[in-house]
Amino acid sequence: MDMKYKKMEQEDFDFLRSVCPERVSVRGEIGEDYWHDELGGIRREPEALVKVLSTDEVSRIMRYAYENSIPVTPRGQGTGLVGASVALCGGILLDFCAMNRFLELDEVNMTLTLEPGVLLMDIGKYVEEHNLFYPPDPGEKTATIGGNVNTNAGGMRAVKYGITRDYVRGLEVVLPDGSVIELGGKIVKNSSGYDLKDLFVGSEGTLGVITKIILRLIPLPKHKISLLVPFPDLNSAISAVPEVIKTSSVPTAVEFMEREVILAAEEFLNRKFPDNSADAYLLLTFDGMSPEEVDLAFHAVAARCLELGALDVFLSDTDERNESLWAARGAFLEAIKASTTEMDECDVVVPRIHVAEFITFASSLQKKHGVRIRSFGHAGDGNLHIYILRDALDESAWKRKLSAVFDDLYGRAHELGGQVSGEHGIGFAKKPYLARSLAPEQIGLMRGIKRAFDPKNILNPGKVFEL
Amino acid sequence: MDMKYKKMEQEDFDFLRSVCPERVSVRGEIGEDYWHDELGGIRREPEALVKVLSTDEVSRIMRYAYENSIPVTPRGQGTGLVGASVALCGGILLDFCAMNRFLELDEVNMTLTLEPGVLLMDIGKYVEEHNLFYPPDPGEKTATIGGNVNTNAGGMRAVKYGITRDYVRGLEVVLPDGSVIELGGKIVKNSSGYDLKDLFVGSEGTLGVITKIILRLIPLPKHKISLLVPFPDLNSAISAVPEVIKTSSVPTAVEFMEREVILAAEEFLNRKFPDNSADAYLLLTFDGMSPEEVDLAFHAVAARCLELGALDVFLSDTDERNESLWAARGAFLEAIKASTTEMDECDVVVPRIHVAEFITFASSLQKKHGVRIRSFGHAGDGNLHIYILRDALDESAWKRKLSAVFDDLYGRAHELGGQVSGEHGIGFAKKPYLARSLAPEQIGLMRGIKRAFDPKNILNPGKVFEL
Repeated sequence: MDMKYKKMEQEDFDFLRSVCPERVSVRGEIGEDYWHDELGGIRREPEALVKVLSTDEVSRIMRYAYENSIPVTPRGQGTGLVGASVALCGGILLDFCAMNRFLELDEVNMTLTLEPGVLLMDIGKYVEEHNLFYPPDPGEKTATIGGNVNTNAGGMRAVKYGITRDYVRGLEVVLPDGSVIELGGKIVKNSSGYDLKDLFVGSEGTLGVITKIILRLIPLPKHKISLLVPFPDLNSAISAVPEVIKTSSVPTAVEFMEREVILAAEEFLNRKFPDNSADAYLLLTFDGMSPEEVDLAFHAVAARCLELGALDVFLSDTDERNESLWAARGAFLEAIKASTTEMDECDVVVPRIHVAEFITFASSLQKKHGVRIRSFGHAGDGNLHIYILRDALDESAWKRKLSAVFDDLYGRAHELGGQVSGEHGIGFAKKPYLARSLAPEQIGLMRGIKRAFDPKNILNPGKVFEL
Repeated sequence: MDMKYKKMEQEDFDFLRSVCPERVSVRGEIGEDYWHDELGGIRREPEALVKVLSTDEVSRIMRYAYENSIPVTPRGQGTGLVGASVALCGGILLDFCAMNRFLELDEVNMTLTLEPGVLLMDIGKYVEEHNLFYPPDPGEKTATIGGNVNTNAGGMRAVKYGITRDYVRGLEVVLPDGSVIELGGKIVKNSSGYDLKDLFVGSEGTLGVITKIILRLIPLPKHKISLLVPFPDLNSAISAVPEVIKTSSVPTAVEFMEREVILAAEEFLNRKFPDNSADAYLLLTFDGMSPEEVDLAFHAVAARCLELGALDVFLSDTDERNESLWAARGAFLEAIKASTTEMDECDVVVPRIHVAEFITFASSLQKKHGVRIRSFGHAGDGNLHIYILRDALDESAWKRKLSAVFDDLYGRAHELGGQVSGEHGIGFAKKPYLARSLAPEQIGLMRGIKRAFDPKNILNPGKVFEL
């Protein structure tokens, strides 16, 4: 796979050091954290790690890489779960974490212009001081906004507010040959030629390197309420979701969770959840501009849940209780990870009506394949996170079972009109499943786009699909 | 331009008739309405007009056209203003108006699946009976949804609800070689490879032929209120818009209009507007699930407008008065058209903060170039419709002045961070302005996409950019 690329030499490292003095490490001195992402299983040491600070630096490095056929992989915090930010073919790993300035908050156009290395957790704080709101809310708050844009991250508030793509107004992108283009802008509508902006969003760093982002903001909802609703079993919990959404009070978020996941989170955080006695829960949030609006939604939904078999409704109407509840939700992934030796995940999205069916199916695979499976996720938008846990399995049994479970999960998701990834992307790990789930003509069109944008295939090669 | 295409002969017409019996007309018998769109100035008779009824028919025709190098132009109601649906290179015009079935309303997933020939005006009625809402609201209600998707039409409610793109969940597309692909689906999130769906949205029929659409619906807001707010002059009206949006009560729509346009609409409709005494007006709508929510917004915004110099605030809180007000707004384009001999339009979008500046600039061009100019538009989202009226100008003066005005308008829009088209598309008429406003690299990427998708350039050739 690497044969057509130049093996980097001293002259290449010297060039990088001339562009980014003191910010270049070369093979043999690159920390192992940079060899893999959060998933861990996909590893390779880059030939050079460069901490970039500006568009100009990125442009000069890309031009050099283009002329010399050196692969370049952009990377944020490395919190991905599919190996997208691993320098699979060697070459240069561009680390954007230090290119993290807020450039402009424009309150009239309600936009925030920032560099890709800004952390998601810092955006909320920054804009909320100005009574503005950036709705996307992926679970991993230490991710960079650049990573969020590159995977089209979704998060918990997609039910009401949509996903990252819906909040990207403009991008500055460095193309593989080093040229810099601006797409979109501080504008609300655009029908001016093909939608290149949305092509870069979610392209996992394979088409261009994003160096500046203009985000759309909305007025900050002033009032918020969360409901934790225990149900006797998972099926009754999830079956309630479409009914809740049909009450016309669109929740900001609807998460589901099973008792085992709550227990794991309680142990991991050493903190009690408001309740852990039921088998399954829905966690809902409503927000709005007035207490009346939020109260109306709460009463309608609480009543409907109780009609549908909910055992109780726990209300969190203070910031503190809200935060505590959602902090526990945010710890689910870490808690599950801490409960086993190794894990892999499936991030499918299915139509909302099929969520209960899919989760029941996923759970049934524990018995079928003799492996522990945990799940939680965004019941309101059909995006499910299914974790397959290795526990004490030996390497070959783990690989075999994992592959069998994935085949079953993705196969069923496809039958139900779903897609391989709702928000984590394809990266390296999910390539075979994407190839199986899409028509060959679709992969063909994606290949055509990749070839047109990156004719030398130097940008994050080996990801998303086989060229 | 046509040299590389096959001139259609009897055998080609016979093939079309074998696929679509009784639904094929050939050159010499095709009504003039099919030679042009709503703008009128760009004309060509197609070699064959086919009224298609199914995906299978479209697929068979495309395969044949591909094998025989015959251009194919898809067309809805022909309400466009940039010549996008004119068969510029001859060949086959595919008329989708009779492929207009509602296929499925899915209340749980809140989606509507339909064929591209369904009229926009019929969608609202259809879903509102089920307490659901399709928010995009372009002024031209007799357009087809296929045309709306192909231009990424925006409309009046974009301020609060976004544009057509935001409501397209899935597409069925026939590719130039006749193969049929399905993109997206009834899913809320998707990070599974490149975003092909959004590439087809707004591509003006140049990349594939859309044969089925899955739209996202939302719960129907039960309460609505409109405000007509007179201001002493245009500048004070438009300057109020960002302030209104900052009150945190996001309006569904914010339109601006000048007295002359209202007078023209009154004459055209033979019906009185609630007020026509002021120089400039804002027309705002607020909607919501409860009367309280809508009332809160109304009070906050009315008070703010009066502080900012509004002369009065007229309230329309019944369906009848609301409809009458918006019907007048919907007639602006027709009224302006009826007031002159010929016209052309500019559909720029600029950041919200620059709307007042841009409109003042546009108005100043009347004096500079000696031509009558009228404008109205979506003040809330920065998408402005500027109409240049021919009146009694002779052909050469009209062409010269039009070109000079366009140069000034697009030049200034570009300086202000705007784009050539907010919602009408590029088609044939706006190609030179798109080429001037984008970096050559961007047009280069679009060309690369077009070549990858349509290697023989048979699909709506001659549109959007020069290949």
